[in-house]
Amino acid sequence: MEREALLEYIRPRMPEKRYIHTIGVMETAILLAEKYGVDTKKAEIAAILHDMAKYEEVEGMRAIVREQGLDTRLLPWGSEILHGPIAAYRAEFELGIKDEAILNAMRYHTTGRAGMSRLEQIIYIADMIEPNRKFPGVEPLRQIAEEDLQKAMKACIHHSILFLVTAELPIYPLSIECYNDYLGEEL
Amino acid sequence: MEREALLEYIRPRMPEKRYIHTIGVMETAILLAEKYGVDTKKAEIAAILHDMAKYEEVEGMRAIVREQGLDTRLLPWGSEILHGPIAAYRAEFELGIKDEAILNAMRYHTTGRAGMSRLEQIIYIADMIEPNRKFPGVEPLRQIAEEDLQKAMKACIHHSILFLVTAELPIYPLSIECYNDYLGEEL
Repeated sequence: MEREALLEYIRPRMPEKRYIHTIGVMETAILLAEKYGVDTKKAEIAAILHDMAKYEEVEGMRAIVREQGLDTRLLPWGSEILHGPIAAYRAEFELGIKDEAILNAMRYHTTGRAGMSRLEQIIYIADMIEPNRKFPGVEPLRQIAEEDLQKAMKACIHHSILFLVTAELPIYPLSIECYNDYLGEEL
Repeated sequence: MEREALLEYIRPRMPEKRYIHTIGVMETAILLAEKYGVDTKKAEIAAILHDMAKYEEVEGMRAIVREQGLDTRLLPWGSEILHGPIAAYRAEFELGIKDEAILNAMRYHTTGRAGMSRLEQIIYIADMIEPNRKFPGVEPLRQIAEEDLQKAMKACIHHSILFLVTAELPIYPLSIECYNDYLGEEL
C-alpha cells in the first residue's frame, strides 16, 4: 500500500498529536533503515501503522486476543501493552499485510522481545527518539542511534526499563527478556 | 531437625562471612515470624539452609536441574539464581525436609515470585536486611519491615530490581512477576 493511503487510514483513528508523532516515527524509521541497510518501504509501513490501535477500547482488544488466539499473557494488561499486537492483527486481517517482518515490528514496538530483527529494532528506536519526543535522556539515545543500531536498541530498552522501575510501573515479561538479551552476557 | 544440627550441616559448605550472614538471616527471620504470626521453627530452618548451595559448582547445579526435572528456565543462569532452587532440592532429598512451605521459602529467596506466602516474604526480607547487610538504602527497608510485611516485601523487590537495572545486570523472569504482583494495580 502507498504512503498516502496508509496515512489516510490511520488519521481518523488517533488525536492530532499522535498523528504528528507517527509522521516523526515514519521519517526517523526511514532514515535508520537507509543507514542500516533495511528495506525502507517495510520500515515506512510498520512506522505508519504502529500506533493505529492505541485508542481502541481495552475490552474490545481483549476480545480480539481471546477470539483470535493471540498470546493470552496479554489479557491482564492495558492499552499500552495491547495496542502493538492488536495493530499487527488489524494490519494483517483488515489491510491484508502478510509480511511477518512488518507485522512483528508493529507487534513488538512497545515491549521489545529477545532476538529482535533489525526492522523491529528500527521501529522500537524510532518510536522513542523521533523529533517530537522530549523526555530527559532522549538526546544521548539519538546520538547512539546515529552510530550503532545494536547499541542504540540496548540503550533504549535499558532506558525504558529504568523509567518503568523508577516510576513503579509494571513491566511486561517480553521487555525483560529483551533487556536480558541485550546485556549479551552470562546470565 | 534441631538448630545445632542444621548449623553444623551448613558450616563447612560456605566461607565464614556467609555463615555469619546466615546467622543474621536466622535471627531476623525468627523476629519477623514472631511479629507477623508465622511458624518460627519453619522460619529458622529455611533461614539456616537458604544459602547452603551458594558455593557449589554451576555445572553440577545445572546437571541437577536437568536430571531432577527442575524448571528448565534456570539452565542459562548462574549461581546467583540457581542456588535457591538447588538448596531446596538438597534440603528435600538429603535432609528429608518435606514441608513445601519451608522448601518454597528457600527456593524463592533470591528471586521472589508472584503470590508469595508470608514465610517466603520473611526469608526474602530477612536475607536483605539482616544486621550484617550494609548497602545504601537498607535502613528504610529495616524500618518498613518493623511496620508492615507486605509493604516491606514490595519495597525490597523494588529495591532489588532497581539495583539490577541500574547496574545493567540480568533479571530473572520470576522477579519481574514478583515486582508486578506487588504493584497490585491494573497492569
